[in-house]
Amino acid sequence: MIEVLRLGHRLPRDCRITTHCCLVARAFGASKLYYSGQKDKEMEEVIKKLVKDFGGKFHVEYIEDEFKFLTTKKNKTNIIHLTMYGEDYKKFIKKEKNYLIIIGGSKVPGIFYKKSNFNISIGDQPHSEVSALGIFLEFLNLKKFFKNNIKKIIPSKRNKKILNLKSL
Amino acid sequence: MIEVLRLGHRLPRDCRITTHCCLVARAFGASKLYYSGQKDKEMEEVIKKLVKDFGGKFHVEYIEDEFKFLTTKKNKTNIIHLTMYGEDYKKFIKKEKNYLIIIGGSKVPGIFYKKSNFNISIGDQPHSEVSALGIFLEFLNLKKFFKNNIKKIIPSKRNKKILNLKSL
Repeated sequence: MIEVLRLGHRLPRDCRITTHCCLVARAFGASKLYYSGQKDKEMEEVIKKLVKDFGGKFHVEYIEDEFKFLTTKKNKTNIIHLTMYGEDYKKFIKKEKNYLIIIGGSKVPGIFYKKSNFNISIGDQPHSEVSALGIFLEFLNLKKFFKNNIKKIIPSKRNKKILNLKSL
Repeated sequence: MIEVLRLGHRLPRDCRITTHCCLVARAFGASKLYYSGQKDKEMEEVIKKLVKDFGGKFHVEYIEDEFKFLTTKKNKTNIIHLTMYGEDYKKFIKKEKNYLIIIGGSKVPGIFYKKSNFNISIGDQPHSEVSALGIFLEFLNLKKFFKNNIKKIIPSKRNKKILNLKSL
């Protein structure tokens, strides 16, 4: 089970970035995204609607105290912190079943570097928590389940093909 | 040479998403990002500053007419449109030297699907143009050059290590 923690969500600044993090987490097989910072009901609703349309079981949960959350999770799961300061992700070998993947946040407090089992970078250049999460999850090659979907995309060379299963 | 075209930049809605697209393009070896929609001087300045700090030659350029631009580019380069409606990226084999990678944009006009040499998807689930670009560029495994940098990140297991080459 792979879950994600997105630190320090700020309104309105991070609205779309965190929404994209949720979409990426879901699309590449994570089961849940926790976020700290400011609560964002609108974002939660957007994701809920998308899950309803495209299927699967993906949840978004707001957490008030990210430090307390880290301590609780630390006992149950391996923690991976994605940061451009970490070690090359290609060296990482997935051994455990459960991981919590942490992504920043403008300034990630030092405790997240210290308490994480792995500080992992996707290249040593600044880029984006959205792409870091996408590349890392794609690298992990998780099984993906998107059952009970209403909409289904049909891959196409030249067109937009989307099947509406509700109307069939 | 790999360049990127980001369609339909909207202010203030897309400020951070397009900035992240620029960062991803640069970090994974593209040489330039063109964007259409609304001109965003602030974003251009942010990227200019980052290139100065972290090195390499990466440019951001605003284009007024995305359709005219597409026609001009079409004669000189292969065009790849990243879209969740396209075909699986893992089947793509890089043959040419020059590619223009197009990313949306809220609603991409049909002509971009038709005029592109390849419509390519990174999975068949909705996610993010930021992660799509990151995953695809990482997949292409381009050579990256970040010369003349002032700052350099040193990979680390537990710490933030950044070398300031100016002060050495």
